[in-house]
Amino acid sequence: MSATINFDNAIPGKVTIYDFPPGPYPCRVQIALHEKKLHDLVDFEFVNLYKGEHKTDEFLRTKNYSGTLPVMEFADGSLLSECTAITEYIDNLDGNPILTGTTPFEKGQIHMMTRRVEFEFLEAISLYFHNATPGLGPTVEKYQNLEWGLRQRDRGIRGMHFLNSLLQKQPYIAGDKFSMADIACIGGFVFLSVVKLEPPKECKALLEWFDRVNERPSVQEFFKMANSFELPA
Amino acid sequence: MSATINFDNAIPGKVTIYDFPPGPYPCRVQIALHEKKLHDLVDFEFVNLYKGEHKTDEFLRTKNYSGTLPVMEFADGSLLSECTAITEYIDNLDGNPILTGTTPFEKGQIHMMTRRVEFEFLEAISLYFHNATPGLGPTVEKYQNLEWGLRQRDRGIRGMHFLNSLLQKQPYIAGDKFSMADIACIGGFVFLSVVKLEPPKECKALLEWFDRVNERPSVQEFFKMANSFELPA
Repeated sequence: MSATINFDNAIPGKVTIYDFPPGPYPCRVQIALHEKKLHDLVDFEFVNLYKGEHKTDEFLRTKNYSGTLPVMEFADGSLLSECTAITEYIDNLDGNPILTGTTPFEKGQIHMMTRRVEFEFLEAISLYFHNATPGLGPTVEKYQNLEWGLRQRDRGIRGMHFLNSLLQKQPYIAGDKFSMADIACIGGFVFLSVVKLEPPKECKALLEWFDRVNERPSVQEFFKMANSFELPA
Repeated sequence: MSATINFDNAIPGKVTIYDFPPGPYPCRVQIALHEKKLHDLVDFEFVNLYKGEHKTDEFLRTKNYSGTLPVMEFADGSLLSECTAITEYIDNLDGNPILTGTTPFEKGQIHMMTRRVEFEFLEAISLYFHNATPGLGPTVEKYQNLEWGLRQRDRGIRGMHFLNSLLQKQPYIAGDKFSMADIACIGGFVFLSVVKLEPPKECKALLEWFDRVNERPSVQEFFKMANSFELPA
């Protein structure tokens, strides 16, 4: 029997993440945990998106009203969801934030660009997936709005062109340093592969950025796991 | 001639906010500025949403790709947009954050609840406004998706019931203290009045919360300005 590993002295005990590890949003917390060397301290509990296990009445009532993954649960029953929120938490645990900024302006920039990547790319592709493709299948996708989904796909493609123009001027999404905003954008690329969309070939700076962030050990760990992932029967 | 007022020693000089001051999103930064006693240090430049001045090619290209307000501009030309990002910035300027949390877990909770309020209430009502009501008028609303808008209205109403159940157990949206998440929820109430929707009468805890936050000087300052606001011709 192993000793209890403390993830956070403020809330002693194990931390569990309800997760679908290779998913586009889960990817963001997976990579952040690797960046912070905290990945091995977490227990992951698999939630099968394709069976709608994140939309059951019980999950919505007891884990996350919004029905999204990942959800972090502490030994005392406290919960954290939303990738940005979980990343803020784990990045600040050791008093040495490397993903969410140190100065007030850096914090602002990183939050701005994280939200922009979500709004203009990651969420747009997600809305396309859930509304204009089979998505998670007919049992889970109880309502779809084809026209909205297709418009969001186009918004996501425009978003990639915007990010490309930004990356012609700076190495990372929020400026000179890798941050939470880059991780959100990696999530967008993961979603592109789910919906089988290619990033536009002419977006050279964006593609070079993706090659660059792929050299990070945290990102390599994520893709190693995701590429060998098999959906349980 | 008055001396230059420094808003932030890191970026000397005046700060301008492109704004439609009484709006549901602008409200969030207006209140945060009052909470931090920074409101008087900012120059506001009026952007007329109802004339689509936030959607011109020039505004999108030089101020904010996403075409939203408010946008904060520094003397060196740097820009910050997205309410959460601007709030992170101004709350951390003096090293004494009162709206975005001090411990890692508090930061996480406040970001989680801010995003939840946006996703389940404020953004939902915004999507209803822009898609299923005349919104900003036919010149600005170039595309509308009625069905999506109506579903989002219903999502927003469900969201208020969720927030009500939360506020039966705790005094503020993210727990024991007033925070950025409460300010986002005030933005939702501002949007309700724009679309002429009443919050559900049975949501007593939510309505009591609204009375409680309305006692804050920052919130009173906002509503005093908003209630006397007249749209320029």
